[in-house]
Amino acid sequence: MPKHALPVTREDDFAQWYQHVITEADLAEESGVRGCMVIRPWGYGIWERIQRLLDDRIKETGHENCYFPLFIPLSNFEKEAEHVDGFAKEMAVVTHHRLVMKDGRLIPDPEAKLEEPLIVRPTSETVIGNAFSRWIQSWRDLPVMINQWANVVRWEMRTRMFLRTSEFLWQEGHTAHSTEEEARLETLRMLEVYRSFAEECVAMPVIAGEKPENERFPGADATWSIEAMMQDGKALQAGTSHFLGQTFAKAQNIRYQNSEGEFDHAWTTSWGMSTRMIGGLIMVHGDDDGLRVPPRIAPHQIVIVPLLRGGPEDEQIKRYCNELWYELRKQYAFGEPLRVWLDTKETRPVTKRWGWVKKGAPVILEVGGRDVAGGNVSVIRRDRLHREDGKLDSTVMAKGEFLDAAKAILESAQKRALLGARERMEASISRSITDFDKLVDYFRSGGKHPGWAEVQWARPTGAELDKVVERLKAHKLTFRNVPNDARDADGTCIFTGEPAVERILVARAY
Amino acid sequence: MPKHALPVTREDDFAQWYQHVITEADLAEESGVRGCMVIRPWGYGIWERIQRLLDDRIKETGHENCYFPLFIPLSNFEKEAEHVDGFAKEMAVVTHHRLVMKDGRLIPDPEAKLEEPLIVRPTSETVIGNAFSRWIQSWRDLPVMINQWANVVRWEMRTRMFLRTSEFLWQEGHTAHSTEEEARLETLRMLEVYRSFAEECVAMPVIAGEKPENERFPGADATWSIEAMMQDGKALQAGTSHFLGQTFAKAQNIRYQNSEGEFDHAWTTSWGMSTRMIGGLIMVHGDDDGLRVPPRIAPHQIVIVPLLRGGPEDEQIKRYCNELWYELRKQYAFGEPLRVWLDTKETRPVTKRWGWVKKGAPVILEVGGRDVAGGNVSVIRRDRLHREDGKLDSTVMAKGEFLDAAKAILESAQKRALLGARERMEASISRSITDFDKLVDYFRSGGKHPGWAEVQWARPTGAELDKVVERLKAHKLTFRNVPNDARDADGTCIFTGEPAVERILVARAY
Repeated sequence: MPKHALPVTREDDFAQWYQHVITEADLAEESGVRGCMVIRPWGYGIWERIQRLLDDRIKETGHENCYFPLFIPLSNFEKEAEHVDGFAKEMAVVTHHRLVMKDGRLIPDPEAKLEEPLIVRPTSETVIGNAFSRWIQSWRDLPVMINQWANVVRWEMRTRMFLRTSEFLWQEGHTAHSTEEEARLETLRMLEVYRSFAEECVAMPVIAGEKPENERFPGADATWSIEAMMQDGKALQAGTSHFLGQTFAKAQNIRYQNSEGEFDHAWTTSWGMSTRMIGGLIMVHGDDDGLRVPPRIAPHQIVIVPLLRGGPEDEQIKRYCNELWYELRKQYAFGEPLRVWLDTKETRPVTKRWGWVKKGAPVILEVGGRDVAGGNVSVIRRDRLHREDGKLDSTVMAKGEFLDAAKAILESAQKRALLGARERMEASISRSITDFDKLVDYFRSGGKHPGWAEVQWARPTGAELDKVVERLKAHKLTFRNVPNDARDADGTCIFTGEPAVERILVARAY
Repeated sequence: MPKHALPVTREDDFAQWYQHVITEADLAEESGVRGCMVIRPWGYGIWERIQRLLDDRIKETGHENCYFPLFIPLSNFEKEAEHVDGFAKEMAVVTHHRLVMKDGRLIPDPEAKLEEPLIVRPTSETVIGNAFSRWIQSWRDLPVMINQWANVVRWEMRTRMFLRTSEFLWQEGHTAHSTEEEARLETLRMLEVYRSFAEECVAMPVIAGEKPENERFPGADATWSIEAMMQDGKALQAGTSHFLGQTFAKAQNIRYQNSEGEFDHAWTTSWGMSTRMIGGLIMVHGDDDGLRVPPRIAPHQIVIVPLLRGGPEDEQIKRYCNELWYELRKQYAFGEPLRVWLDTKETRPVTKRWGWVKKGAPVILEVGGRDVAGGNVSVIRRDRLHREDGKLDSTVMAKGEFLDAAKAILESAQKRALLGARERMEASISRSITDFDKLVDYFRSGGKHPGWAEVQWARPTGAELDKVVERLKAHKLTFRNVPNDARDADGTCIFTGEPAVERILVARAY
C-alpha cells in the first residue's frame, strides 16, 4: 500500500479530506472575517489561469469587459419582486459612511447614516440593467454584450471554502438583444463556452442542460447549467447561463426603437462562473496526496527542485538548474510558453518535493549531484505518482530526452485528466431506473459515494413540481438539469406515471 | 484654425474639457450610485492593459497575487490608532445582513443586525497584516511579498471620475521583511517599478521622490510617490510606496524567530496604483479632439474602418479589410501581437472616424473603393491628426508600405508621447525661486496653468511643518515630494530662512 501525503483519505472522510487539500496545497484559509476566505498565492494563481483562459473565450465571442459599482441602492431591488425574493435573505447592507470614537470604542457614526441603505451586490442584473436603459435607444445599439470580473457577496449561514463563501469572485456576463431568438442563442452559446472551457481547460467533464423550473435563477425565464460529478458522486453546478426574457428589461425600462420606428423591450441574458470552480477542481482531480492541477490551469507546470547539500557540488547544481529553466521557458505547450518555476527557497528538498506534490504541480524535476554528472533529471509526474508497489515513481531521464518530451508529457497529462474523470462520471450515471422507489434505493445502496441517475419525467410545473421536489428532498436528492444531449423520452414519468417528455438528472449536490 | 471634436477646449475650461473627454471617449459614466462610476468598455480596456503590464512587472520582481476579504471587522481598526485617524472619516459600514419587507418597502432587517459591524476595505493593511501574523513564524518564512488587485471604498464627499470616486480599483502590494534595510529597498524598488511603468507604458513622465511628513500614509514611517504634471500644470500623485517600519507589525503581532532563535517584529511595506492613472492619462495625453492613448496601453492599436456605401464595391471592401486585419494581426510591436480592430458596426463611416479619434485609437485605417482599387489604405495617426492648415491629416499609403511601417509607426507614437509630455513638464518646473513671496507670485502670475516649483527647504517637522503647510494652503499650494534625483541643496530654506537640506516640489494638485 502506498503511503499518502494527506492525513485523511477521500475514502475515510471526503469532507475532511477536502479541507486538508485546501490547507496542505496552500490554496486558501479562513480569514477571521465571517464567511470570507483568504485566497493564497497557489489558489489565486489557479484562479488567474482560469480568468485568463475564460476571458479569452468571452472576448472571442464578442463580449467586452466593463466595471459596475459594488453598491446597489436598495430601491433598485424593489423594481424586480421575484429577483428580490431570491436574494433578499442574504445580502450585506451598508447603512453608515463613517465611524466615530465613543467611550474608547469605534462605532458607526449616528450622524452619518445613509438616507438610502446600499446593498453590496449579490449579482448585478439590477445595476447593469440600469446602465443598459441609458445605453440602449435604437436597434442600432443592439446587441449589447458585456462582462465583468468582480467580487459579490451573499450572506451565507453555512460556509465552505470555495464552494459557499459570503464573498466570492466571479465573472458575470450580461447581454441585451433585439429578438427573443438571438437572446436564446446567446444563452446557449455561453453555456457552450462554459462546457468547452470546463472540459478543455479544467479537464472537468460536465453535463450541460436546462434546469427545471424550481432551480431557475430568480426572475429568469430559463436557466441552463453545467454540472460536474465530484469524486464522492455529488453534483456541483459549475456555471449557469440565464435567459431572462423581457422581465428585467421591463423592470429596468430597457427599450429600443426598431427599424420601423416602433418601441419594444429588449431581451436579456446573464451568465456566470465563479471561484467555486476551484472547489470543483479539488473534488474532481484531487487524490490522497493532495491536489492535481491540470497543466493548462497550473500556475507552474514544471517545478525544478535543486537537491543542495551544502557541498562543493551545489554551485554546479544551481547552474545546471538555471540552464534547465531557461531551456524549458523557451518551449511551448497548449500554444503558450511553458510556465516553469525554479524553487530556490531555503527549505529541505524533501519538504519541497512533498509541498509540490500536495499543490499538484504537474511535473517536478529534482536535480542532484548525480543527475548533473550524468546529464540527467529525475522526473516526478503528478498524474502517475506511485509505482505499482506503492513507492514514489521518480524516473531518471537524460536532460535532452526530457526537453524533447516536456510538451508531450504536459499535453498527455491534460488529456488523461479529462478522460479519467469522464470515464468515472459516465460509469456512475444510471440511465435505467424506471420507478421512484428504485431511484431511492439506488442512492441508498450506492454506499458512501452513489453517482447520478438520469430518469424520464413528464416535466410537471407549479405545485405539482413542488411536490416532486419535496419527495426528492426527503432523500437529500435534487434535480440537476435536463441534459442537452440526452436521448428522447420513450417511457413514463417516474414521479407522476404520465408519459415522459424528457430525461432529467437526479443527484445529491453541493 | 482647426475645428475640434470636443465642444470645450482645454484652454476654455480644463475641468469641463476633462468631463467631455470621459463622455465622448466612452471611458466611464455616472452610475446613479453616489460617488461610484460605471467604467465602460474602452475605459476598462485601458485598465486591463495597465493591469496586464503592471502585473507582469510586479511578478517579475518576485511578488505573488492573493485575494483578501472585502470586509474588515471594526475591531481590526482599533489596533492601529494613527491608521484609523487617517481613514475613519470615510468608510462604508455594513451593519445588517438581511432585508425585510415592511409596509411595502424594503428595509434592513432589525433581526439581522451584525454583532460587530464590518468595514468595506479602504485599504488592506489591517486584514493582510492579520494573515501575515499567521504566515510568518521564522526567518525562513521571510520575505513575504504579495499583491492583490481589488476594489476599495473611501467615502468621498466630492467625487470626480477616475480621480476621486467612492469605489475605485487598484492593486495593493504588501510585503514583510526581516531587516529594515531590506524593507526600505523594497519600498524604493516598487517606486522604481511605478516610475518605469508610468514612463514606459503610459508614456507619462513622473518625478519620483519622498513625501514630506505631513503627506505620509497614515501609520507609515515614510511615503514615496511618483508625481505627474497634468496639462493644466497641476500635479497628480500617480502611485505611492510606503515604508511602514515595524508599526503595523507591532499592532498586528507579525513576529518571527531569527536564525539565533530570538524573536523580532517584521518590517513591512505597502504600495499601490489605481484607476486614478486613467484620469492622469486623460490629462497628460488628451487634446481638444479627445483622448490619445499611447499604443502600449491602447485596447486597439489600429482600427480598420471600411467605407461602405451600400454599392456593389462593398463586398470587395469587406474582403480587403478582412485580409488587412489578418496581415496586421500576425505582426508584433513592443514584443506583443498587434491589437487590431475591424469596426463592422452599422454606423456611418464619418461617425466611426470621429468616434475613434475621440477614443484616441493610435491609428485609424479607412478603406474605401478607391483604396481597394489602388491597393492602398488611408492612414490617420492620432498623434498627428491635423495638417498645418488645420485640416484632418489622412495619408494614402500603399498597403504593403503600411504593413512594413506599422510597428515603427506605433513605436514612434509611443516614444513621441513620452518625449512631448516630458518636454512640457521640464519646461514648466521652476528651479530658481528663492523666497516665499516669489513662490506665491510664480503661481499667481502663471495664469490659468502655472507649473511646479522646486525649492530648497530645511525640512521642518511637527508644528513648524504644519505652519509651512498652512502658509502654502492659503495659496492652494501643496508639497508634492523631494525628488530622488534633485540636486543637493546649496542655499537657504525659503520657508524658514535656515540653511536648506534638500529640494522639494511645490504645486497645485488633484
